[in-house]
Amino acid sequence: MQVLSSISELRAAIRAAKRENPDAQVGFVPTMGFLHEGHASLLEAARAACDVVVLSIFVNPLQFGPNEDFERYPRDEERDLALAAKAGTDIVFLPQVEEMYPAPTRTIVSVKEVTSRLCGASRPGHFDGVATVVSKLLHIVQPDQAFFGMKDAQQVAVIEQMVLDLNMPVRIVPCPIVREPDGLAKSSRNVYLSPEERAQSVVLSQALQKARLRFEAGADDTTPSEVTLLVETKIRQAPLAVIDYVEVLEFPSLQPVSSFADSNRVIVAVAVKFGNTRLIDNAVISI
Amino acid sequence: MQVLSSISELRAAIRAAKRENPDAQVGFVPTMGFLHEGHASLLEAARAACDVVVLSIFVNPLQFGPNEDFERYPRDEERDLALAAKAGTDIVFLPQVEEMYPAPTRTIVSVKEVTSRLCGASRPGHFDGVATVVSKLLHIVQPDQAFFGMKDAQQVAVIEQMVLDLNMPVRIVPCPIVREPDGLAKSSRNVYLSPEERAQSVVLSQALQKARLRFEAGADDTTPSEVTLLVETKIRQAPLAVIDYVEVLEFPSLQPVSSFADSNRVIVAVAVKFGNTRLIDNAVISI
Repeated sequence: MQVLSSISELRAAIRAAKRENPDAQVGFVPTMGFLHEGHASLLEAARAACDVVVLSIFVNPLQFGPNEDFERYPRDEERDLALAAKAGTDIVFLPQVEEMYPAPTRTIVSVKEVTSRLCGASRPGHFDGVATVVSKLLHIVQPDQAFFGMKDAQQVAVIEQMVLDLNMPVRIVPCPIVREPDGLAKSSRNVYLSPEERAQSVVLSQALQKARLRFEAGADDTTPSEVTLLVETKIRQAPLAVIDYVEVLEFPSLQPVSSFADSNRVIVAVAVKFGNTRLIDNAVISI
Repeated sequence: MQVLSSISELRAAIRAAKRENPDAQVGFVPTMGFLHEGHASLLEAARAACDVVVLSIFVNPLQFGPNEDFERYPRDEERDLALAAKAGTDIVFLPQVEEMYPAPTRTIVSVKEVTSRLCGASRPGHFDGVATVVSKLLHIVQPDQAFFGMKDAQQVAVIEQMVLDLNMPVRIVPCPIVREPDGLAKSSRNVYLSPEERAQSVVLSQALQKARLRFEAGADDTTPSEVTLLVETKIRQAPLAVIDYVEVLEFPSLQPVSSFADSNRVIVAVAVKFGNTRLIDNAVISI
């Protein structure tokens, strides 16, 4: 496994792999590091589908708001590299901020509509930062396929819209959420939780499971506001949970649902704060 | 010469050329058609530097304001294809609007600062439209080099900034302005001019020539406002000329110059209306 920190070295390594095998499929997993089994599942999907697997680890300042956790975002390079090697990664791209932003960027890639709700509403500018850095990384790596976890379902929707609108020559592969045994979605931010918060955080997946069961019982005789209420009520059973949002939207357009009869797929998405830690989770449901 | 209207055909043609010669350099000249000797010079530069020359002809609605000339922008496909063939073009990409925008784009590429003055100030949203469509075309063609005329110097500055900020894997090659024998910069919009307007339009290049001579006489003892006044005075000698802007800025940052002693390169840029026809011209001067 090669670990490279400069863009020119990375491009040279990928060029070399393509020279050896001109038909080599390059698979790319962009991350912010502090890897967990969710990331490992993306690397494994890339390993299964591609000849060359590239992982990037970069905590992107552009997607953090001024009062967010950029500085204290968890980092553990040594453990990340061990996990990457175990998952069969060929190349790790680990740039410093100065390599990615030698000067403040004047260019912003902005995706409208799919960013107006959910985390886009709670975190203004966040998805401009995500779209811009993913655009940069896709231009640097030039992968055939890029793998993203469905925990950040809105991120997947944003990236897919950007790739479609800008005719980017890459296939986006969404991968299922990986969970702890009790149901909590794997997240680098889970380490922030106190033992009490960790115990109560299970309400997120439990609430989504209630929504899923309600749809299975019959989507025709329920409404978005009934499902929202069901989820909110379950989350409120955890005394430390402070709801940021609970929304039921069309997927992947992320626009409001008027009636489930007109929808093929909906997403039930939640963001909940435990102390300073903001957790997200979702269920995408085919109707 | 192949003439293709679909993105998938174009990609297949370029893939085939690269399969035949994996080291083939692809040169790209994006245009809005109604080609003149300025465009021909770009194609010739691409022909000299590259193995495969791709020309695109697409009048991009996204870069026209609501009261601008999108509908009446001049078009002559037959003449364009003859000029393209004569200049040694290999592939012409000639998409319909529906091929480039099957749905309204939700993604916008926006370049700040270099777009705040000159045509960016006169034409709000114009450079977002330019950056977005050039980004799309670069992803579709994936050229090694792309050739742009310096008549649209601000466009060159915007594209170079975008390519730098987003790490796009392409080299931007700016090419010199091509002029009529009397000095008028070649432009597709010159056909709009009445004979009287055409005769008077020569003041643009004459005014820029005066600025150039003033710098040659000694940049140290002049100021941006003196040069601006010199250029404006000359343009006002044409009774039909209505000045949109005359500006002296740093190049390529397009920020104000405080003193010529601190500058390496400046641009003297003008936009002038004759009736409904807006002409631009510029001189980039090394100090």
